[in-house]
Amino acid sequence: MMTRTELRLRQRQAASMLRQAGIVITPKEASTIEAADCGLGKFEQIGLGVLVYVNTERCCAKELALWPGQTFPEHRHPPVGATDPGKEETFRCRWGLVYLYVPGSRTRRPKARPPAGREATYTVGHEVVLRPGDQYTLPPNTLHWFQAGPEGAVVSEFSTTSRDELDVFTDPEVRRIT
Amino acid sequence: MMTRTELRLRQRQAASMLRQAGIVITPKEASTIEAADCGLGKFEQIGLGVLVYVNTERCCAKELALWPGQTFPEHRHPPVGATDPGKEETFRCRWGLVYLYVPGSRTRRPKARPPAGREATYTVGHEVVLRPGDQYTLPPNTLHWFQAGPEGAVVSEFSTTSRDELDVFTDPEVRRIT
Repeated sequence: MMTRTELRLRQRQAASMLRQAGIVITPKEASTIEAADCGLGKFEQIGLGVLVYVNTERCCAKELALWPGQTFPEHRHPPVGATDPGKEETFRCRWGLVYLYVPGSRTRRPKARPPAGREATYTVGHEVVLRPGDQYTLPPNTLHWFQAGPEGAVVSEFSTTSRDELDVFTDPEVRRIT
Repeated sequence: MMTRTELRLRQRQAASMLRQAGIVITPKEASTIEAADCGLGKFEQIGLGVLVYVNTERCCAKELALWPGQTFPEHRHPPVGATDPGKEETFRCRWGLVYLYVPGSRTRRPKARPPAGREATYTVGHEVVLRPGDQYTLPPNTLHWFQAGPEGAVVSEFSTTSRDELDVFTDPEVRRIT
């Protein structure tokens, strides 16, 4: 569990990254930034900062802030009920550099490596490199993980409804509490 | 019908506005910017620039570029078929200033005025002022129109699927061809 003091620090840092990317947010929004450490207690290695702009029963938009080299662990967004095939999401890099891994032919000499000691929980290895202005749309229920480049990254996410608590992580130790 | 020369000019101007707002787009994206004059042939008065990032069967994200004082005419996004109640959209101001008008109590002394000669086709008058970092979520099938402030505006739109050709405009002379 992240302390309140660390949460405030991470919120300030994330807000600063967004500002650096040219993104204006309100003070009230800054105070709602989530710092997800995935229950692993090593935020700068595994986790991310998230500002949810809107999340209705139909669609969602967020900004993601990634610290230098920070990894968000492999997961998928499963179907919900009989009619929702799961969350579909588009990642658009706004600032910095992101390595995104999805199913498909495994990239030789990938730029990112899974966090040490947890390699077995990173199973997809087709690399997509996103620089500012690049984007990638991920179908529902598709395994993916991502890691920021050496300066960190700011990524916009446009998606259907977000239900983070339903995400299925490959690493059984990951806890996604929002 | 806008000439190809004017379209190219409007695309360059819109790309420049996005850049000014700190938004990075690719050259290929710049060439897909739409300059909608709503069939009225007075683009700087009535119309807008649009860059569609993604528009799937489930959700959509765009950047809108508005010229100084430019108005986008009153319209709504009607239900589609038996299950889709119509497009839901969130406008988030990134740069500049936008006056958005929606149903509700009519604002006294509104900041924007409908284009001269077309006042009768602007029927909703509850004013929402959006500055950078402000946003507003509009339910489906809800009349709305908007006008940029004196310097123009850049607005992100997060929504369900966009089907511009189905939009219902109050002004019968408006044509929305994309």
